[in-house]
Amino acid sequence: MDRAKYLELDKIFHPHNVAVIGASQFGDIASLALLSTKIKDRVYFVNPKYSEIYGRKCYASILDIPDPVDYAIFGINAKFVPDVLADCIKKGVRAAHIYTSGFSETGLPEAIELERKVKRIAEGKIRLIGPNCFGIYCPESGLAIVPESLEQEGNVGVITQSGSVAESFSYFGKTKNLKFSKVISYGNAIDLDCTDFLEYLADDPQTKVIALYIEGSRDGERLKRALKYASAKKPIVAIKGGLTENGSRVATSHTAAMTGTPELWKSLFKQCGVIQVNSYDEMVNAVMAFSYLNLPAGNRVSILSNSGGFSVIQTDLCHAEGIEVPKFTDGTIKQLRQLVPLAGTIIGNPLDAWPVYYKIYEKEGNLADIIGILGADKNIDMLVVQFDQFRYIRRMRQSEAGEHTRTLTEVMLTGMQHVRDVIGKPVIACVVIDPFLEDDEDRECNLMMKNVFEQNNFPVYPSLDAGIKAVSKLFKYASMHVADK
Amino acid sequence: MDRAKYLELDKIFHPHNVAVIGASQFGDIASLALLSTKIKDRVYFVNPKYSEIYGRKCYASILDIPDPVDYAIFGINAKFVPDVLADCIKKGVRAAHIYTSGFSETGLPEAIELERKVKRIAEGKIRLIGPNCFGIYCPESGLAIVPESLEQEGNVGVITQSGSVAESFSYFGKTKNLKFSKVISYGNAIDLDCTDFLEYLADDPQTKVIALYIEGSRDGERLKRALKYASAKKPIVAIKGGLTENGSRVATSHTAAMTGTPELWKSLFKQCGVIQVNSYDEMVNAVMAFSYLNLPAGNRVSILSNSGGFSVIQTDLCHAEGIEVPKFTDGTIKQLRQLVPLAGTIIGNPLDAWPVYYKIYEKEGNLADIIGILGADKNIDMLVVQFDQFRYIRRMRQSEAGEHTRTLTEVMLTGMQHVRDVIGKPVIACVVIDPFLEDDEDRECNLMMKNVFEQNNFPVYPSLDAGIKAVSKLFKYASMHVADK
Repeated sequence: MDRAKYLELDKIFHPHNVAVIGASQFGDIASLALLSTKIKDRVYFVNPKYSEIYGRKCYASILDIPDPVDYAIFGINAKFVPDVLADCIKKGVRAAHIYTSGFSETGLPEAIELERKVKRIAEGKIRLIGPNCFGIYCPESGLAIVPESLEQEGNVGVITQSGSVAESFSYFGKTKNLKFSKVISYGNAIDLDCTDFLEYLADDPQTKVIALYIEGSRDGERLKRALKYASAKKPIVAIKGGLTENGSRVATSHTAAMTGTPELWKSLFKQCGVIQVNSYDEMVNAVMAFSYLNLPAGNRVSILSNSGGFSVIQTDLCHAEGIEVPKFTDGTIKQLRQLVPLAGTIIGNPLDAWPVYYKIYEKEGNLADIIGILGADKNIDMLVVQFDQFRYIRRMRQSEAGEHTRTLTEVMLTGMQHVRDVIGKPVIACVVIDPFLEDDEDRECNLMMKNVFEQNNFPVYPSLDAGIKAVSKLFKYASMHVADK
Repeated sequence: MDRAKYLELDKIFHPHNVAVIGASQFGDIASLALLSTKIKDRVYFVNPKYSEIYGRKCYASILDIPDPVDYAIFGINAKFVPDVLADCIKKGVRAAHIYTSGFSETGLPEAIELERKVKRIAEGKIRLIGPNCFGIYCPESGLAIVPESLEQEGNVGVITQSGSVAESFSYFGKTKNLKFSKVISYGNAIDLDCTDFLEYLADDPQTKVIALYIEGSRDGERLKRALKYASAKKPIVAIKGGLTENGSRVATSHTAAMTGTPELWKSLFKQCGVIQVNSYDEMVNAVMAFSYLNLPAGNRVSILSNSGGFSVIQTDLCHAEGIEVPKFTDGTIKQLRQLVPLAGTIIGNPLDAWPVYYKIYEKEGNLADIIGILGADKNIDMLVVQFDQFRYIRRMRQSEAGEHTRTLTEVMLTGMQHVRDVIGKPVIACVVIDPFLEDDEDRECNLMMKNVFEQNNFPVYPSLDAGIKAVSKLFKYASMHVADK
């Protein structure tokens, strides 16, 4: 994008001083969020009802703040927005994030008129984000969406018309081991729009992958240019919300967006090389893969498994996702036969071989070596390592199950690192936990393994289905874009 | 099925005395499993290596057991199976479950020949389950597959060619609140086959729904008759493992099954009114719905949500699953407008209205009443209630978040019971927890809610996606079968 415009947006993401207008001490997420980040000493509260909030001075008006303010967050009733916006302009605020809802998304004529008025007041004088949105999370500057946002910076950019999607990404960063460059919730988009943020994140050197949730656009041609520009530079994983008649009805009530037919959007994303997904989980899982992994050379995966039945189901699933689970070479089979017992196992791809999860004490020929063999096969482009074994280990090892799992984790990690760092192929882990499992030992051992793999920068998924769908997106992006480069 | 054959099978599922041949004290799941059920005093261990196991006498041969034995479990090396089988016949054993693998599934000529020999020895003298399988879990009689199996009886029947699928159903019964009539893992099926078990569970008065995992069949016509017979009586949720070329290759290594084209299986299931699914989770989730709910009158669902963006995605997802999310009647909208604040909500279907999760202390017009209004709408056949709110409640209520969630749970339950028991429409709950979430308070509050709903016989799902896919199967079965009845 134009350098001047890039710098204008970059300044918005990195304000010096921030005012929260309509701050309160009770359930005010914006205030809570900012007080936990590096910007906390440069936050000013504004609310004529209070003189103090969280032990800090609270001003009656933004005009009373003695220092300059370049970014304002509006958490006030919609009807007060025009006057307060005029104050902000007087104060020299560069950009305002209007959290407030109750504008065109309600469908009410007076609310639509109010939104038009806000737009007119702002035009040429102040940039707006929203209304009806969660605004910006930028760990580098300290802007935050939820109090639980991680302070660490990362490479994931999120642009979303839905506040909940922004909130979920921000809140679950820790759980998913996702770290962000910028998360942007832009709501009704009366000024800054999806296309502005797409062009900005395309040029942002910190952003490696972009997650996009969009319900509609006011300028299809500009959106198309922005999508093409950005997706040529980095992967975009996108959900178009409101693809169906009823979904579209809901989207219109949500952000008053102009929608369009499902076919139109599907074709737009395809033309622009954007990866379209249909669920939030699928988007998050794909983003995790892009954040941590290099692109694979092809679509052929090998899977370490521990169940014949699930290996069969998973192989079918891979096929449905455009991933192949090819036969190993004779050389690989021969090597595996020397290390894996025959009865109750399937020496092939997937390698269904529960006994290998007990081959962890040998110096040579242990599970690390077996994982290395799976990754080295010349028919293979990616490796998926699975653990769904704790209850079996506990039946076998009883009180030593925890210790066994710790050693196993180290051995698996050695194999995975070898495949990723020495052989040079993408590796993911699936550490299977049922979300409702009430078994502390089982949960703790699985979470320990998950955390060790994540600390070593592997994406970890709670089911093989989720992992397969995620790696399939790596290949999809590679097949759409790598030839161009 | 033929009454004599039904009774023969029913006796196999309810043995008087059981021998575990090849029992040991170390990691022997069969012995561990049986010792935790009501059959425990009628279990005999056989292994010439030991004189005692788990403090019980261990016999060198089944012929040494002083009492009669009618069911034997083989956990011995494949090569010993023929001789031990001959001993069992001599002892008068009615049926043997051959756990042992290393037969035709290996593809080795000598193993295939061994399997033929076993079949010849048994023919007409003893019934066989397996080889290469986990056998039977029948809470009523005490047969069990894993030591963690619930003792409570239920209405879910499982027939699976994969031992892991049987193990997973049995182990996760507690987590999923699934209770079983019979779980059957039948492996290579050299005698009793899928069709026998289908006909048996079709006639079994305790079984309300059947989960089926099948890799192949030796008699397509008989299978078709059995599927038609059973699915006319109760829903069958089926996975055909090995639908793709590579999946089929893996299936052949797994249970040596004759497979077939994906189109052939798809058409077979459709003709027989069987609900085909592609993943294990999808199967479990559908089975939960059938186990607890009556069939809906149609495919129209109302959703209680707390996010605009997710409401939009979920409405699209419903459409993809054959479920409609219709507009409410004007009367419903009018009633909701009186109870739900306008700003930041969407008064429609889905009802995206986070403030209602705080309307729990009013005597009238609280969340229970709102849920009742959603369920009463005449455009609606089913209700989906969602909770993904704990982190928001904690930000608002802080130290009182747990207490708030307990009251909320009671209020939601009142509304859900009204819709199910008074209005008479199926209701599911989605209590959203990320499997990797490491936040004890969040987990505990969500699990508390989940457990309360389950104690009141509602199926509970960890995500709305999972719940929607499950209820869509209710409608699918109803549309295929109800007209016939």
